[in-house]
Amino acid sequence: MRADPGLLAELVDANRILAGQGVVDAFGHVSVRHNESADHFLLARNMAPGNATTDDILTFGLDGEPIDAEGRSVYLERFIHSEIYRLRPDVVSVVHSHSMSVVPFSVSQSARLRAVCHMGGFLGCDVPNFEIRDVCGAGSDLLIRDGVSGGALARTLGSGAVALMRGHGSTVVGPTLRLAVFRAVYTEVNARVQLQALQLGAVTYLTPEECDAATKGVGSQVDRAWNYWKAQADGPRR
Amino acid sequence: MRADPGLLAELVDANRILAGQGVVDAFGHVSVRHNESADHFLLARNMAPGNATTDDILTFGLDGEPIDAEGRSVYLERFIHSEIYRLRPDVVSVVHSHSMSVVPFSVSQSARLRAVCHMGGFLGCDVPNFEIRDVCGAGSDLLIRDGVSGGALARTLGSGAVALMRGHGSTVVGPTLRLAVFRAVYTEVNARVQLQALQLGAVTYLTPEECDAATKGVGSQVDRAWNYWKAQADGPRR
Amino acid sequence: MRADPGLLAELVDANRILAGQGVVDAFGHVSVRHNESADHFLLARNMAPGNATTDDILTFGLDGEPIDAEGRSVYLERFIHSEIYRLRPDVVSVVHSHSMSVVPFSVSQSARLRAVCHMGGFLGCDVPNFEIRDVCGAGSDLLIRDGVSGGALARTLGSGAVALMRGHGSTVVGPTLRLAVFRAVYTEVNARVQLQALQLGAVTYLTPEECDAATKGVGSQVDRAWNYWKAQADGPRR
Amino acid sequence: MRADPGLLAELVDANRILAGQGVVDAFGHVSVRHNESADHFLLARNMAPGNATTDDILTFGLDGEPIDAEGRSVYLERFIHSEIYRLRPDVVSVVHSHSMSVVPFSVSQSARLRAVCHMGGFLGCDVPNFEIRDVCGAGSDLLIRDGVSGGALARTLGSGAVALMRGHGSTVVGPTLRLAVFRAVYTEVNARVQLQALQLGAVTYLTPEECDAATKGVGSQVDRAWNYWKAQADGPRR
Repeated sequence: MRADPGLLAELVDANRILAGQGVVDAFGHVSVRHNESADHFLLARNMAPGNATTDDILTFGLDGEPIDAEGRSVYLERFIHSEIYRLRPDVVSVVHSHSMSVVPFSVSQSARLRAVCHMGGFLGCDVPNFEIRDVCGAGSDLLIRDGVSGGALARTLGSGAVALMRGHGSTVVGPTLRLAVFRAVYTEVNARVQLQALQLGAVTYLTPEECDAATKGVGSQVDRAWNYWKAQADGPRR
Repeated sequence: MRADPGLLAELVDANRILAGQGVVDAFGHVSVRHNESADHFLLARNMAPGNATTDDILTFGLDGEPIDAEGRSVYLERFIHSEIYRLRPDVVSVVHSHSMSVVPFSVSQSARLRAVCHMGGFLGCDVPNFEIRDVCGAGSDLLIRDGVSGGALARTLGSGAVALMRGHGSTVVGPTLRLAVFRAVYTEVNARVQLQALQLGAVTYLTPEECDAATKGVGSQVDRAWNYWKAQADGPRR
Repeated sequence: MRADPGLLAELVDANRILAGQGVVDAFGHVSVRHNESADHFLLARNMAPGNATTDDILTFGLDGEPIDAEGRSVYLERFIHSEIYRLRPDVVSVVHSHSMSVVPFSVSQSARLRAVCHMGGFLGCDVPNFEIRDVCGAGSDLLIRDGVSGGALARTLGSGAVALMRGHGSTVVGPTLRLAVFRAVYTEVNARVQLQALQLGAVTYLTPEECDAATKGVGSQVDRAWNYWKAQADGPRR
Repeated sequence: MRADPGLLAELVDANRILAGQGVVDAFGHVSVRHNESADHFLLARNMAPGNATTDDILTFGLDGEPIDAEGRSVYLERFIHSEIYRLRPDVVSVVHSHSMSVVPFSVSQSARLRAVCHMGGFLGCDVPNFEIRDVCGAGSDLLIRDGVSGGALARTLGSGAVALMRGHGSTVVGPTLRLAVFRAVYTEVNARVQLQALQLGAVTYLTPEECDAATKGVGSQVDRAWNYWKAQADGPRR
């Protein structure tokens, strides 16, 4: 079982793009399902994603354990990835982050994150919010440290594209690596727009049909964004 | 029919300035009416505007179709441009963007974008908001994919400088390329100021007469801004 | 009458620092009273301040007219500077800007900018807001285009350090060039803090005595900030 | 008594990381207890922290006075550090800053800074706010200029990790230099999230037990953040 070098390179790009766009900082991670085995996925070792290289990518099984770590430390929260891959055969990539404008929605008792602009259509009309207290009680450190809490998060995600995690961040999935990254960026953008719009009063959201249409329509646009963000992550910032 | 090389270079600068000022990112586009034909306009091929070069500029007719694409893909929303050029002989340049502080006004049911500072005088006392549901129903992807929706947007714009597009962004026009770019930047600035001012309570806006005077007064200042923004886009950011 | 080369260099630094700190962009300007004549002041020609060099500095009289422009265009709003120097012999430097967080206070009908943190002590307990309609009627372009409106602004400023200008920006003065720059930066910082604090509910402001003490106490700190901001404007941004 | 060169280098890194992350600008400072004497601490001379080198690090006693300044000027507010080291034997490092999103909580009469996300667990359920008027009256410049006010601040901090300082900023402590820096960054992050969340309505905060667990859980993550922030401070920003 050997990872496609092109996929490895793309996963490194994904790490660097997410850092460049401010979705991840020292924390957060992105994985992709293995090209030769649906029961494995690729994910960096425990490190800031913006610094990852192909040498830092490890292979994990669906139990969340690495098969080639050779002593290198791994992300505590790898079970976010493994449990979602287990429950969602359609998911090819998972992004977990603490991006700044999304966290407020995860702790709000009244506002719910939802699609307010066409780029956020994939969010639909109500993004579920995972409350870890329901699984681990009111004394956890909020981290997904095992398969039990990872499985509960995966069930909260359901068939959707995004789940918030109360007081913590969010997890975004997609049918391709590029689309998962795209969605992670636009989850943050939509949250920022929604935060500001709500300060102006009542808001017109996308209808369910608009969400569906916008989600389909965006497909052909993903590469344009990917290439632009990659150039920004590669080149000198001007 | 040959495009003036100076105009092509200026259109490339416009693309890069709008990216540098954060008005466009991977998405958004800027066009200019052709120097030899009022029935044609110049617009980049389908790409992130910040990366455009003169080789990427295509020529379009007022039906929104390119005449020299030679297989290169084009922006889905080119009909924004074609229909405005058709209805507004005075318009020489069109900018479409999703700039961050403007979108909240496009989805607010109560607040209306309007001139709150002298640099935004061209916005006047009420910026129209295009509701695509009125043309395409409540199940569209919010994009201007044809001449029909483009024409409806152009009619919403009317004789104004800016039209919001609900859940999507805005379109800004001008009698010169530089002035359209200038207005696109200051639409965003005015929106940011207005968002913050509304959080403080009631706001004093510009009167219609102040809007007119500020719009006229700003003419001589456009080159100062253009040259500064161009230097920022060209040079290393310090 | 010859300008001190050290003063010219410091004025260029002031221009670049204000651009680097985001107080000015393509617009805004900073002047200093002439070292050999209290009836003259130094100010860049009409240009984006961040690009100014010593060759761009002109000498103006207290009538607001340049004596050595040699055909170069000058700022429309030079009368802000001339009229303040005329009325305020203690003022050695004037900064005019549209810095982003200050403008909202200039258009708010309820909130008043005032010192909320020790770095903003010089703002005192109520920053005056210049309403140009009182001088030029409700149809002006909001610019200070002559000595009459400049004089009215100077009288609104009174003996203070800062005057807001409704729908436009602010003007900040100081007994030294460095202190005027320092105050312009911290007017923006104080405004940003106050905007956010007001969203949390009632605010504790500095007392008049605290304002006085903080204004005196900050004197020895100005060079620390100046040198840091100058290094940022000079060097590559890391 | 000789400072460990590795500790000196790490203190310089701390200065540069805090500047790079926007916690300090021209103002603010970070100290560490001396490796050979619990009655001494290391702190830069009076300068912008982002420019500090190992040559700029001085040694101070618990009276707040330097023993090796050799005429170099020292921070006015060094008593923040000396008095906390005196009262809190467990504290190894102290960071004082005016970071932007924290100051609004220091002047709010209703909102209290507290842990809203797992990275801010160390904040607990109520961060104390030091009111200097209680010690120095209502006419001070808000600075900690002597041991008396420093001692009062230290008592307000109590056994906690963070104390706000009304109209001024905050002081953050930790059992290691790296953890104090980590906490200073995430105090700002938590404040930004809480500011935005409060604008959406009622907020779910961490429980005391969650705060405790998150504080313990974060220990192993500090080096990941430190190394990432250090690389950002060292390298060219891309």
